[in-house]
Amino acid sequence: MKRFDSDYLEGCLPEILQRLGETNLEQSVGYGEDAHCAAAREKIRAAVGRPDADVHFLVGGTQTNVTVISSLLKPYQGVVCAESGHINVHETGAVEHSGHKVMALPATAGKITAAQVEKAFASHRDDANHEHMVQPGMVYISFPTEMGTLYSKAELTALSAVCRRWQRPLFVDGARLGYGLASPLCDLTLPELAALVDVFYIGGTKQGALFGEAVVFCNPALAHEFRYHIKQNGGMLAKGRLLGIQFETLFTDGLYLKAARHAIDEAFRLRDGLRAKGYRFLCDSPTNQQFPILEDAQIEALRAEFGFEFWQRIDATRSAVRFCTSWATRPEAVDALLAAL
Amino acid sequence: MKRFDSDYLEGCLPEILQRLGETNLEQSVGYGEDAHCAAAREKIRAAVGRPDADVHFLVGGTQTNVTVISSLLKPYQGVVCAESGHINVHETGAVEHSGHKVMALPATAGKITAAQVEKAFASHRDDANHEHMVQPGMVYISFPTEMGTLYSKAELTALSAVCRRWQRPLFVDGARLGYGLASPLCDLTLPELAALVDVFYIGGTKQGALFGEAVVFCNPALAHEFRYHIKQNGGMLAKGRLLGIQFETLFTDGLYLKAARHAIDEAFRLRDGLRAKGYRFLCDSPTNQQFPILEDAQIEALRAEFGFEFWQRIDATRSAVRFCTSWATRPEAVDALLAAL
Amino acid sequence: MKRFDSDYLEGCLPEILQRLGETNLEQSVGYGEDAHCAAAREKIRAAVGRPDADVHFLVGGTQTNVTVISSLLKPYQGVVCAESGHINVHETGAVEHSGHKVMALPATAGKITAAQVEKAFASHRDDANHEHMVQPGMVYISFPTEMGTLYSKAELTALSAVCRRWQRPLFVDGARLGYGLASPLCDLTLPELAALVDVFYIGGTKQGALFGEAVVFCNPALAHEFRYHIKQNGGMLAKGRLLGIQFETLFTDGLYLKAARHAIDEAFRLRDGLRAKGYRFLCDSPTNQQFPILEDAQIEALRAEFGFEFWQRIDATRSAVRFCTSWATRPEAVDALLAAL
Amino acid sequence: MKRFDSDYLEGCLPEILQRLGETNLEQSVGYGEDAHCAAAREKIRAAVGRPDADVHFLVGGTQTNVTVISSLLKPYQGVVCAESGHINVHETGAVEHSGHKVMALPATAGKITAAQVEKAFASHRDDANHEHMVQPGMVYISFPTEMGTLYSKAELTALSAVCRRWQRPLFVDGARLGYGLASPLCDLTLPELAALVDVFYIGGTKQGALFGEAVVFCNPALAHEFRYHIKQNGGMLAKGRLLGIQFETLFTDGLYLKAARHAIDEAFRLRDGLRAKGYRFLCDSPTNQQFPILEDAQIEALRAEFGFEFWQRIDATRSAVRFCTSWATRPEAVDALLAAL
Repeated sequence: MKRFDSDYLEGCLPEILQRLGETNLEQSVGYGEDAHCAAAREKIRAAVGRPDADVHFLVGGTQTNVTVISSLLKPYQGVVCAESGHINVHETGAVEHSGHKVMALPATAGKITAAQVEKAFASHRDDANHEHMVQPGMVYISFPTEMGTLYSKAELTALSAVCRRWQRPLFVDGARLGYGLASPLCDLTLPELAALVDVFYIGGTKQGALFGEAVVFCNPALAHEFRYHIKQNGGMLAKGRLLGIQFETLFTDGLYLKAARHAIDEAFRLRDGLRAKGYRFLCDSPTNQQFPILEDAQIEALRAEFGFEFWQRIDATRSAVRFCTSWATRPEAVDALLAAL
Repeated sequence: MKRFDSDYLEGCLPEILQRLGETNLEQSVGYGEDAHCAAAREKIRAAVGRPDADVHFLVGGTQTNVTVISSLLKPYQGVVCAESGHINVHETGAVEHSGHKVMALPATAGKITAAQVEKAFASHRDDANHEHMVQPGMVYISFPTEMGTLYSKAELTALSAVCRRWQRPLFVDGARLGYGLASPLCDLTLPELAALVDVFYIGGTKQGALFGEAVVFCNPALAHEFRYHIKQNGGMLAKGRLLGIQFETLFTDGLYLKAARHAIDEAFRLRDGLRAKGYRFLCDSPTNQQFPILEDAQIEALRAEFGFEFWQRIDATRSAVRFCTSWATRPEAVDALLAAL
Repeated sequence: MKRFDSDYLEGCLPEILQRLGETNLEQSVGYGEDAHCAAAREKIRAAVGRPDADVHFLVGGTQTNVTVISSLLKPYQGVVCAESGHINVHETGAVEHSGHKVMALPATAGKITAAQVEKAFASHRDDANHEHMVQPGMVYISFPTEMGTLYSKAELTALSAVCRRWQRPLFVDGARLGYGLASPLCDLTLPELAALVDVFYIGGTKQGALFGEAVVFCNPALAHEFRYHIKQNGGMLAKGRLLGIQFETLFTDGLYLKAARHAIDEAFRLRDGLRAKGYRFLCDSPTNQQFPILEDAQIEALRAEFGFEFWQRIDATRSAVRFCTSWATRPEAVDALLAAL
Repeated sequence: MKRFDSDYLEGCLPEILQRLGETNLEQSVGYGEDAHCAAAREKIRAAVGRPDADVHFLVGGTQTNVTVISSLLKPYQGVVCAESGHINVHETGAVEHSGHKVMALPATAGKITAAQVEKAFASHRDDANHEHMVQPGMVYISFPTEMGTLYSKAELTALSAVCRRWQRPLFVDGARLGYGLASPLCDLTLPELAALVDVFYIGGTKQGALFGEAVVFCNPALAHEFRYHIKQNGGMLAKGRLLGIQFETLFTDGLYLKAARHAIDEAFRLRDGLRAKGYRFLCDSPTNQQFPILEDAQIEALRAEFGFEFWQRIDATRSAVRFCTSWATRPEAVDALLAAL
């Protein structure tokens, strides 16, 4: 069985495993206050180009989203996002569980626009009954999106401008951030992205770590007493050093982007191969997730040998599926998949 | 100034005021355990035709909605409703504040269909990742809806059947229940409605009481320890007798429906008068809310003498507005409004 | 049956009932934005001696407590109070339901001291693991307390100083505020009290209104967007004018304190009569609640004719009970009670 | 520096690291549905002696506590525990954040008694105002406690009997379960403990895993849809296999208890050595945490070479400190500590 179900099928990058072994018997204090976390924070600040950024490490994506969002909102505020946003669809209502409405806007290929957000802010303020309605308190986007697409520099700049004019934080879910930045079709660098947003996270789980997400508050004032939020939300790992060691390793010698680039290379080989065979795609994804449209019978047959995700029905006989590559994807597996299609 | 802004512009029906005066110096225990509440419960059970119904009194609509909904849902469940539903739009996210997602479905004239609800339930169960998604745990509808429309007996029967097949409670927000039941276009009686739903409330605030909503659990098993929920949600009125006295009065000699019928009569006079003058309406409302489409200039001019609510823009020069009648609407006010249009 | 169970046994002061009748057919906008609410706010600001105070009206005590407290705290903060505080004991965990720990301190006669609060603040800051503990975010006291006792000016000044030094709001539950201020043993005026606290409320429910609590933010910065909080917590009364009319009446011609003084007079008559008969008391209460210690057999016998609350067992044969007087207590009832004891 | 600050200072048992390496490039589905998790569940069921137990893996203790507790309680219920319980003191109010009161009882050496719990349940039911109070909905204890102490079989049997009579779940926080079971002074086996409680967890983080807690529902009916709770609370690890692999390893060849026994041996060497030198202890701990009482000057001096936790002041010149041993404690470190004292 060759699996393309997701980008968290394997353990971790060998460099990380090696460092875990080397450091295993070190004694260190807990909860992220050890030397490895400190070193990882420094490396991330450097990579992000923001020496004053406040960096925190959490274990997983849902936990990170709900902790950041609920730390930024007042009780009567909600978070604006794309209808297809992970927080709206795939987190069992964790944001609502924390008391806040997810204010979903129709998305195009997973993205929302500055104009939509402007309208959401303005129409709330203009409503005579505004106190009877949830106040839009921040904006959440994913980079890349659930559809593998990317905001361009122009699009993100426009979103950022709206958020700043309304003094609402802009938060980027970067669970797959590396797969975005490593794409040749991405016109943003990490420092450029960081300069446009208030807080974002650098995904580890899907990018070669065992687990872990590094939250970067570009606007450190927003991180006030954030460690209380982490602890209260059950996200403060006792052996915090594990997060430190992993991000330290990922941000040494450019490993983070190097690993991501491998995934992109394989995704593009898959995409180009399928295109050459005449397949069409649900959308044009510049990252590690590809959504070709297949015949249902073909999908059924493929399942014997390959793992992948059903995405959505297209018509009576065809559906889109999702193939994910990752840092760990073996080229032979892509070859086999191409051969099978 | 003659006001048609809402159906809670005045104090209360004179019969209620009189009873409050008569009982003012009685001493009674608090929190809804007095003789007036007991008598009101009996009268409501009789009117509803369910001798085993569990009846509770709360002060206002948002409080009632959130108390009932959060008492019925498990933490990971959400409430299915129309996109235009009051809980989704006009309660400052009170349901989400209680931890639950509002799962809004596109509505037609304020209503959702049995087929939509069936699909919401079925697609959740069928999703391989269902534990990553909010589970639809109940259905909320309004009767009449925010648009003044009514579910027919057939429509409500179909919704009821879906909910029972899936063993999910069906809850009816009856803030304007009387204005629905009193409409000549309503094909449901109160006992018929009660037989189809699990829990609903009989609105007092908009129907001639000073305040108060009577929650009726047709399925009394769902009311288990409901008084704890009321108290925890800040809805247990110390002088509960005030709720008892008001509902006792409303359900004596058919006052509740009599008062509602007056509102309907005046609303229909207004509707028919406007129709005769050639006005069109945003939708065909069989109840006390009417939504004619007016020229913007006309709207501006009307405001000098009349109170009403802007509803939504129709095109560059015209908008729909809302006129509410109530138990207290003076026929002369309707005459004046008709004359002014 | 003559009842002394509580101070909310009857309806309301006749002046209020009369005003409700006089204004009944006025049309007014909802949700506290009518002229009566505006007038009541002005009268309260004047009585409190703070022209810039922000005044809001809610329906009941639990609702008021949870709305104010949850509006002031960050998610990881708790509210410091007496172990016997109403929020800790008699509100079905409404504060915890809003996500916040009630940090209860041992109380003496219902009161906590500045030294206790200072210690709570200081020990949190000094703890190396402070992020693993709830941060004390504000202080809640009752005036009078659950035991009918009062903070002296010196005690409240000391509490206020601690709160200000630590920049934590001091909130006073004034459900029975009038019964405190009207006591001859109270050494604080309303303006003096207001100058020492950040937010407090003026109880209506127990002081002659049908219902209603007037929240006064002496520090108006703390009231930022408070109406959203009220609405989200289900406390925004549709016919807000009812609250306006009641507080307008209570704060006209000194009615509020006049009505309270009657209760105190009768409570003191009862107290002095019992003292003369040799009864002892659980504590020395200067307000409308009196806690004499009776023989259990005597308690049983009294129940045939009088309503009152069992408070706590003293020894094998005696218990303390509570008698409440109010604005509505008839002198004959007190006479009868004294005769029966 | 030799550290005894806690039992999570190092990475993990070498056996675990080796298995992580061996399995690193396996592809497996996420979220705990892989073969390693399945195997670990089987091994745990066997060790626990309950073939029908429902076993779930979470990442950390606070997360586990809040997920289990909030899944078992109704909104108006609280959890009864010792005042010194971890959920009451060191989890930043995570339980209250989930909406539930922590109902703390005075503890003796970290333990509460069946009689205390019986009284808490009975006095709630007997209170006339019970709906105004939080209902005690379950009991939480730690085994070992925060003080390193253990419930005896008799004590746990009595607690269990009270909980069953009242039909309230009994939940055991087993963050250090192995250190309890491995103590020669423990008179309970794992199956005996499991037979007395409804749900408990087997701590990994403090017992030689990188992280992870295995929740065991001895009463599987209580685990209904528990995976939704895990996901909503941010505790569903994407690479769930990491939890499976670790617990599989811990429950192979008795590694879990073997590693714990090493900690106990070293703790007892430390305890006996200190006793021989005449030191007294805060309490008599039969597990891996020891609380000797030292002179303050001595404490200061020790800090140069040793890590440990200040616990509490005893008198003007002496304080109790905590030394933790673990699976990783080197005998030489204990020797050095004994020599230094």
